[in-house]
Amino acid sequence: MEELKVFLSENEIPTHWYNIMADMPNLPKPPLHPGTGQPVTPDDLKPIFPMGLIMQEASLDRWIEIPDEVRELYRLWRPAPLHRAGYLEKALDTPARIFYKYEGVSPAGSHKLNTALAQVYYNKKEGIKRLATETGAGQWGTALAQACNFFGLECVVYMVRVSYQQKPYRRSIIEIFGGSVYASPSERTQTGRRVLAENPDTPGSLGLAISEAVEEAAGREDTNYSLGSVLNHVLLHQTVIGLEAKEQMAKTGFYPDVVIGCVGGGSNFGGFAFPFAYDKITKGAKVRLVAVEPTACPTLTRGMHTYDFGDVAGFTPILNMYTLGSGFIPPGIHAGGLRYHGNSPLLSQLVVDKIVEARALDQTSVFKGAIQFARCEGIVPAPESAHAIQQAITEAIEAREAGEARTILFNLSGHGHLDLAAYDNYLSGNLIDYPLPEEDLQGALSNLPKVPV
Amino acid sequence: MEELKVFLSENEIPTHWYNIMADMPNLPKPPLHPGTGQPVTPDDLKPIFPMGLIMQEASLDRWIEIPDEVRELYRLWRPAPLHRAGYLEKALDTPARIFYKYEGVSPAGSHKLNTALAQVYYNKKEGIKRLATETGAGQWGTALAQACNFFGLECVVYMVRVSYQQKPYRRSIIEIFGGSVYASPSERTQTGRRVLAENPDTPGSLGLAISEAVEEAAGREDTNYSLGSVLNHVLLHQTVIGLEAKEQMAKTGFYPDVVIGCVGGGSNFGGFAFPFAYDKITKGAKVRLVAVEPTACPTLTRGMHTYDFGDVAGFTPILNMYTLGSGFIPPGIHAGGLRYHGNSPLLSQLVVDKIVEARALDQTSVFKGAIQFARCEGIVPAPESAHAIQQAITEAIEAREAGEARTILFNLSGHGHLDLAAYDNYLSGNLIDYPLPEEDLQGALSNLPKVPV
Repeated sequence: MEELKVFLSENEIPTHWYNIMADMPNLPKPPLHPGTGQPVTPDDLKPIFPMGLIMQEASLDRWIEIPDEVRELYRLWRPAPLHRAGYLEKALDTPARIFYKYEGVSPAGSHKLNTALAQVYYNKKEGIKRLATETGAGQWGTALAQACNFFGLECVVYMVRVSYQQKPYRRSIIEIFGGSVYASPSERTQTGRRVLAENPDTPGSLGLAISEAVEEAAGREDTNYSLGSVLNHVLLHQTVIGLEAKEQMAKTGFYPDVVIGCVGGGSNFGGFAFPFAYDKITKGAKVRLVAVEPTACPTLTRGMHTYDFGDVAGFTPILNMYTLGSGFIPPGIHAGGLRYHGNSPLLSQLVVDKIVEARALDQTSVFKGAIQFARCEGIVPAPESAHAIQQAITEAIEAREAGEARTILFNLSGHGHLDLAAYDNYLSGNLIDYPLPEEDLQGALSNLPKVPV
Repeated sequence: MEELKVFLSENEIPTHWYNIMADMPNLPKPPLHPGTGQPVTPDDLKPIFPMGLIMQEASLDRWIEIPDEVRELYRLWRPAPLHRAGYLEKALDTPARIFYKYEGVSPAGSHKLNTALAQVYYNKKEGIKRLATETGAGQWGTALAQACNFFGLECVVYMVRVSYQQKPYRRSIIEIFGGSVYASPSERTQTGRRVLAENPDTPGSLGLAISEAVEEAAGREDTNYSLGSVLNHVLLHQTVIGLEAKEQMAKTGFYPDVVIGCVGGGSNFGGFAFPFAYDKITKGAKVRLVAVEPTACPTLTRGMHTYDFGDVAGFTPILNMYTLGSGFIPPGIHAGGLRYHGNSPLLSQLVVDKIVEARALDQTSVFKGAIQFARCEGIVPAPESAHAIQQAITEAIEAREAGEARTILFNLSGHGHLDLAAYDNYLSGNLIDYPLPEEDLQGALSNLPKVPV
């Protein structure tokens, strides 16, 4: 009997991360300094990042060795299982074979721990004692707190105030792992105090929380800043997902016709799809790579590929990426992890070069797919991951209509155990969609930073 | 390098459940009819249970085959992994080897699905279309709703009103799987209406919710009742846990010196420990079996071994078991699944016969152990399961003091993702212990039912 789950042994955990910059037909243009408009230098980044990560950010080496200390901790839950979604296939009456990689088995409940452990390791190696970060939906704050706990660093998390109030369980789990959580804006930073003085009742925003975390990191010698997506080194660390998935697919005897992941800043998609992009770029593999985002925040499908800030306040380097405009505030959809105006420069370039396709989905259709998946396969997915599920369902239906036994592979990047209020909302019929009006998009894109050509 | 996790392949899922009644030195006395005081007959149970389960309840066959349909669904997550708690060992500086079986990977998040699938299967086979049950902490309601969903049955869950209000996520997950949840007492039953008329603001109780579920099952031809612990057939189905754990321990090359599980009604402990009890009874294996309960509800350590009702209202058969008195209402500790006045008759008899030892722990010490475990191993345990963890920590410290490399094995019966409010309570210093006062115990035990000798 064919097994529904494919496991690897711990000594099959990849020994190296895959760096797609070695193989891309075109690299993104370099990040620019927000003050000077000139390409950023390693020295510009040193106040908030360790040199180990700064070097990875710019490296063109194809394979970068995973440090033993990180690989050792990966063994707590990795290799993550690959599942055959046999019950979903039956429910859809499709000849397609549907496989999914399940990253929700991580202690943090999502893929985020893959990079959190690596980032904390390099910071610790360079003598850093504390890390500051922001969190919106809470997945990233949870993962960084866990990673800091494992390596004995302090962790300070600025949590967008509205999330802090609406998601008390997310705060709890960060505290279980010894992290300190502050509602942002807070009284701890100049930025926070200024905003609170002007507007004591502000719900906060991710852009503001980033500003507070960066301010704390820049102002203290023992403290660095840590980011959970978008940057090259973050996507690099996530390639353990795709590398394992390739090994596992090889054991099933099938190679995917289509590889699907959801996209916020691009790290779970990049980490999952880039090892398959390697096959496509260097060996001509006929695999489609599909990035799925919400219609409420359609960065890749309707944004502009240009230079823009990574945050609202304009503190970060200016990145060459797809963007909706750094002033764009996405509506309050439940997939909080996908509410980002910009995107990974690497992923953006691959979309420009037609190596990756992008799709946007309404959240009501996403929750419909999530419930169908949960009832077939038993796992309640995170709303973010459910975007990949719904696209996989669409692909499986298309395969049925074409009468083709296609192989579909998607990344189930996290579980939804702390997102059940969103399901309540859907099941009670209170969920609505927020397709982005064209005039709002044009407005948001009218304020891009001026950069030298 | 030794692997931290031991997996089995899906074709190593046990083919049979183990029935300890075939090997017990003494069987519990038979259950009695609550009206007549005479031993219950299969016919007495037919209005609410299918014959397949009634026969298992009384079977003396050592091995009972797992139906293919149930085993097929076990493959969604089974075999559950066995982990070596290497980081916890280091933190405790102990020569002991600590292993744990992790049942939290189940779609329901706990071991409860092992029996839920079996119970739904036998009910479906006999033409039943709906199942009614009660749930307190919510684990059982979740599991039964999932199992009904997989087999296409309706599921009606009476959820103790205070839990219904305090744990909205538990209600959500039951509804995601298509179950209907009603706060108990409800207007749906005579019992519920009577109680509401007398006391509209009652918080409800497990005993009352049982009464409502039994009333619904007894009153409808298409509906049966389902119980998540205590009964012989429930413990039988849970033996997949211990049978897998034995295979996995054999792969590690170690045999446990001590096997530990938490106890509410006894199903996760029995399912985990009985296959090792088999070795102890039939082969003289020198393994200690330790059942851990809360000091707030110390059934096995301070209760009386006698005949008592399984519920508060006195609707159920009278069982030969350890009890604190069926009128005993345990205080509101966070391990809601361990708040039961009675215990499995099989487990109770094994305690009488000194094959199983019992321990009681305060909840503050249990949460201390839970946090230590989470920080070492990454998994946030259910408060119930944390009782087993804290006992394992104690055993590991004793091994260190004795200078002995003992092998400790415990069952991590579920994750705590939906119990984070309890952790908040502990971390904020608001958790207190409720050791049972002797006079309360004597009071509760003064009202046992009169039964023929």
